[in-house]
Amino acid sequence: MKKIIFSIALACIVMGSLFAQPTEAIRIRKYVQDNEKTWLKEYLNFIRIPNLASDKISIQQNATFIMEMMKKSGIQQVQLLEVDKPEVPPAIYGEVNVPGATQTIVFYAHYDGQPVDSAQWLPGWHPFKPLLIDSAPNRRFSVIANYESYATINPNWRITGRGSADDKAGIFSIILAYESLRQLGIAPTVNLRFFFEGEEEAGSTHLAEILTRHASLLKSDGWIICDGPEHPSGRPVVYLGVRGDAGMELTVYGSNRPLHSGHYGNWAPNPAFLLSRLLASMKDDDGNVLIKGFYDQVTPLTEAEKKVVESVPMIDSELQKIYGFKRPESPNRSLAASLLLPSLNINGIQSAATGKLASNIIPSIATATLDLRLVAGVDYQKQQQLIENHIREQGYFVTGSAPTEEERARYDKIIQVKRKSGYNAQRTPLQHPFAQKVIKALNSASELPLVISPSMGGSLPLFIFEQYANALPITVPVANFDNNQHAENENMRIGNLWSGISKMAGLMRMTP
Amino acid sequence: MKKIIFSIALACIVMGSLFAQPTEAIRIRKYVQDNEKTWLKEYLNFIRIPNLASDKISIQQNATFIMEMMKKSGIQQVQLLEVDKPEVPPAIYGEVNVPGATQTIVFYAHYDGQPVDSAQWLPGWHPFKPLLIDSAPNRRFSVIANYESYATINPNWRITGRGSADDKAGIFSIILAYESLRQLGIAPTVNLRFFFEGEEEAGSTHLAEILTRHASLLKSDGWIICDGPEHPSGRPVVYLGVRGDAGMELTVYGSNRPLHSGHYGNWAPNPAFLLSRLLASMKDDDGNVLIKGFYDQVTPLTEAEKKVVESVPMIDSELQKIYGFKRPESPNRSLAASLLLPSLNINGIQSAATGKLASNIIPSIATATLDLRLVAGVDYQKQQQLIENHIREQGYFVTGSAPTEEERARYDKIIQVKRKSGYNAQRTPLQHPFAQKVIKALNSASELPLVISPSMGGSLPLFIFEQYANALPITVPVANFDNNQHAENENMRIGNLWSGISKMAGLMRMTP
Repeated sequence: MKKIIFSIALACIVMGSLFAQPTEAIRIRKYVQDNEKTWLKEYLNFIRIPNLASDKISIQQNATFIMEMMKKSGIQQVQLLEVDKPEVPPAIYGEVNVPGATQTIVFYAHYDGQPVDSAQWLPGWHPFKPLLIDSAPNRRFSVIANYESYATINPNWRITGRGSADDKAGIFSIILAYESLRQLGIAPTVNLRFFFEGEEEAGSTHLAEILTRHASLLKSDGWIICDGPEHPSGRPVVYLGVRGDAGMELTVYGSNRPLHSGHYGNWAPNPAFLLSRLLASMKDDDGNVLIKGFYDQVTPLTEAEKKVVESVPMIDSELQKIYGFKRPESPNRSLAASLLLPSLNINGIQSAATGKLASNIIPSIATATLDLRLVAGVDYQKQQQLIENHIREQGYFVTGSAPTEEERARYDKIIQVKRKSGYNAQRTPLQHPFAQKVIKALNSASELPLVISPSMGGSLPLFIFEQYANALPITVPVANFDNNQHAENENMRIGNLWSGISKMAGLMRMTP
Repeated sequence: MKKIIFSIALACIVMGSLFAQPTEAIRIRKYVQDNEKTWLKEYLNFIRIPNLASDKISIQQNATFIMEMMKKSGIQQVQLLEVDKPEVPPAIYGEVNVPGATQTIVFYAHYDGQPVDSAQWLPGWHPFKPLLIDSAPNRRFSVIANYESYATINPNWRITGRGSADDKAGIFSIILAYESLRQLGIAPTVNLRFFFEGEEEAGSTHLAEILTRHASLLKSDGWIICDGPEHPSGRPVVYLGVRGDAGMELTVYGSNRPLHSGHYGNWAPNPAFLLSRLLASMKDDDGNVLIKGFYDQVTPLTEAEKKVVESVPMIDSELQKIYGFKRPESPNRSLAASLLLPSLNINGIQSAATGKLASNIIPSIATATLDLRLVAGVDYQKQQQLIENHIREQGYFVTGSAPTEEERARYDKIIQVKRKSGYNAQRTPLQHPFAQKVIKALNSASELPLVISPSMGGSLPLFIFEQYANALPITVPVANFDNNQHAENENMRIGNLWSGISKMAGLMRMTP
C-alpha cells in the first residue's frame, strides 16, 4: 500500500521537476523552512482553542487569536464583521492595498469546526490537546514528545486535533503567506482582502447577511476559498466548483415507551425495523438512489470540463486499498464520476443501544441523519421534497414534531422529518479569466503538477459569493487528503501546512 | 384510556367477588397492611443498592441485605451457593422444614438487574435513588416527598428504580410471605426452599453449575418462579412456560475509518445502508420473519392449551391505546398468538451519531443487536444458525472478529456476527398435578380471577430446572404489567408488592 503511494509521489516529483520553479517560489519556501519551529508552536496554540460554532466563548478566543496574528503580520483594518445577533459567530476581516494594483482578491477560510465526540478519538488523544505524531493515525505511529530537540521538523509528521486540517490550516496558510511576502520584501500584485468565517460547519447561516451588510469592504474580482483536502494522489488541486449540501433527520416512531422484547415482541411495532425498511427502499445495492426524480435536475458537463475530468488521476483502486474496502458503493462508477452526481448518504443511525448497553427491549424510536450532496442544476429544497414524497409513498404520516396522542391513534406509520438548512452547488467556468489566472499561479507555486477539477466532492456555500458578493469563487485546498476531516483523529500533515503557505503566497502574486 | 382500564378492573372485581375468600387469605392481607410503612422503608433501602451482575461489590451488598432479611424472618440454613469462580454472582439459599410435610417447593427470584443508562431516565430520576410517585411515569404524576406523614400508603403509588419490579419485588414478596405466615402462627403445608439468583439478567450462565453442585440441598417437587409482569388486564396470572432467548450482534463494515461524505459519497460503501438492507431482508411489513425455516421447529399447542389461550382476556386494542400505536408489527395476529411464536427483534442500532453529534461523514461500521425469542420445540443455536445462513445468502463474508486487512481486500461485503449465549423455551404441562395445585392455591389467594397462560412472552432459563434440578417450574409474577422492565423509569406499583406477598403465602399453603 505504502509502495503504491510512494510510486505515485515519485512519478509526480519527476513530472514536477519538468516545471521550471521560479526563484521567487524557492525564496518563499526557504523562508517558511527557516521559521518552521516558531510557526509550529503557534499553530499548536491555535488548535488548543475549541472551535464549535455554538460555543460562544471559544469562538471569541479564536477570533482574538486570529486578529492578533493578522495585526502582527502587518494586515490592516483588522476587524470583526458582525450581524445584529450576538449569538452569531463573527467573520474576521483585514486588508492590504497595493499601490497601482487594479484587481482585488479575497482570501477565505473558516475557523469553526465540526462537533466532536472525544470518546471516539484514539486513547490518550483529545480534539483540543494537539499532539505531534510521526505517521497517519491509522498506521503505526509514535508521538513526538519534544519537537524542539529535533534539528528539523519532518514534513511527514502530523498535528492532531479538531480544526487542524479543516480549516485552521487555511487561516494559518493565508496569514503566513502574506507575512512571508512582507518579510521578503515582495509586494503582492493584487489588493488583498482577508475573510475568515466562524460558522461554516454550522451551515454558514449568516454568511449572506454578513456579505450584504459589509459589501463595500468586500468588493472584489474573485474569491480564493482555502478549504478541503488536496487530491488523494498527493498532487495539489484546484476546484472550480463545489457540491451543495442539505441535511435531513428522520425519526420513526413505535410505541410511546420502550417495551420488553419478550412480553411484546413481535407484536409491538419495532421502529428500528421500520426505519431499516424505509432506508433500504431509498438506494439499491449498486449505489443508485431510488427516489423518483433524484437525478433529473443535473446540469451536464461541458466538453472542456469533461476533458479535465478525464485527466484527473485515476486513484480509485489505491484508495480502496488505503480505506480497506473491496467494493465501492457504486461499483459501476469511478470516484471522479460519482462526485459529479447528487448523493444520498446516511451520516448516522441510532435506536436504543447496542453492545454492553443493549437491553432486551423494543425501542420506541429510531433516527437516521441523512445528508444530500447537490451538483450544478439541483435545488436542495426540491431534493428534500423528493425524499419526503418517497417517504409518504411508503405509507408514512409525515410530521414536523413528535406525534400527538391523536396522531398515534390515527396513523399506521409515523415519521418526523426535519429538513435542515442547506445550499446549492456552485461552479466557476473553466474558461473564465479568473480561473485561468489561478491555474497559472498555482502551477508556478507548486512543486507537483496541478490537478484541475470542475467540482469538489465536498461542500462549501460558494453560491453565496456569486449571489451576495457578486464575484466568482475558486477553491484551493491545503490539507492532506487523509486528514480525517469531520471525524475523530483529525490531523494535518506538516508538509502540507508549509506548501499551503507557498501556494497562498503564489496566489497573492498572480498575474493581475 | 383510563376509563377502559377502570372498566376492565371493575369487571374483574365483580367476577372476583364470586370467589369465596378464605379467612386465612384475609388475615394475611391484614397483616401486610399493618406493616406497610416498615416494609416500604425497607424496600426503598433494597432498591438503593445497585445490582448489575458484573458489579461485584454491589452484588455482595445485595446478598448481605437479602441474607439479613431472611435470617430475621426465621428462615434457616441461610447461605451463599457458589461456584469456583469468584467473579460469578452467588445464589442465595435458605430453607424451612415443616414437620410431617411430604412435598418440597423451591421459591425462586433474582436480585440482579438489567444494565442502566441513567441519562435516559426522567429528569431528576436515578436508577438507584428510588422515588415514590403517585401514578405511572408516562402519565401526569407527582413525587411523594414524605410518605410517613400519610395515614395509609396508597396501593396505586409506585416505587421507581432498577430492580424495583424486576426482580427485587420477587425476593421481597417471597421472604415477607414466610415472615407473615410465621408471625400469624400459620405453618406452611410444604417444606420451603429459597433460591435467589444473582446473574439472571446476565444470562444465568452459571445457574446449571450451581444447581448441579448443590443438588442435595435443592431436591424438590417443583419450583415457583417469581418474576415477570402480571397480565396487562390487571388480573393475576400464572405462566406454565416461558419463551427461550438468544442474542446476536451484527456489525457491518465499510471503510476502515469514517470518510467525509462530500469527498467520498456515494462512492465509499456506507455500512448503515448495508445494514438497513440486510435487516429489511429479514422481516416483512406484516411482521413475518423471512429467514428460511424460522418457524419450522415450533411444537403445536395441545387442545387443552389452545382452550386456555382462547380464554386469556383480549386486551390488544386497550394496550395499543396505552402504548400509543395503531398498527401492531403483526397486524394479522393477536398479542397472545404472537407470544406463542418465535420472534426476531432489533434491540438497538448504532452507526456513528445522529442529532447534534451527527457529522457529515460516511460511518465506518454499523451495528445491530438482535434478540430471538424461542418457543417450545425451537433450538436457539439452530435459530442463530438460520440467521447466519440468511446473512451469507445476502452475499456477506461472515467473521467472528473485526476483519483483517486481507479480508477487507478480498470480500465485497463483510459482517461480524457474535452469537451470544442463550437458552431454549420451557413448558410445564397444564394437566400436571403440580400445575393444578398451583392454580388452585392462586385462585384462593387472589382477589381477582386468575389468567392461565401456557407461556410467558418473556424469557427465563427454566429449561435448566427441568434439566439440572429434575423438577418442573411454574412462573407466578407479582409486578404490574406497565413496570418499564428492562428500560428506563422502571417502577413497581405498591399494591402489587402487597398482593405479591399474599400470593406467595398462598402458595406456601398449597394442597400438599
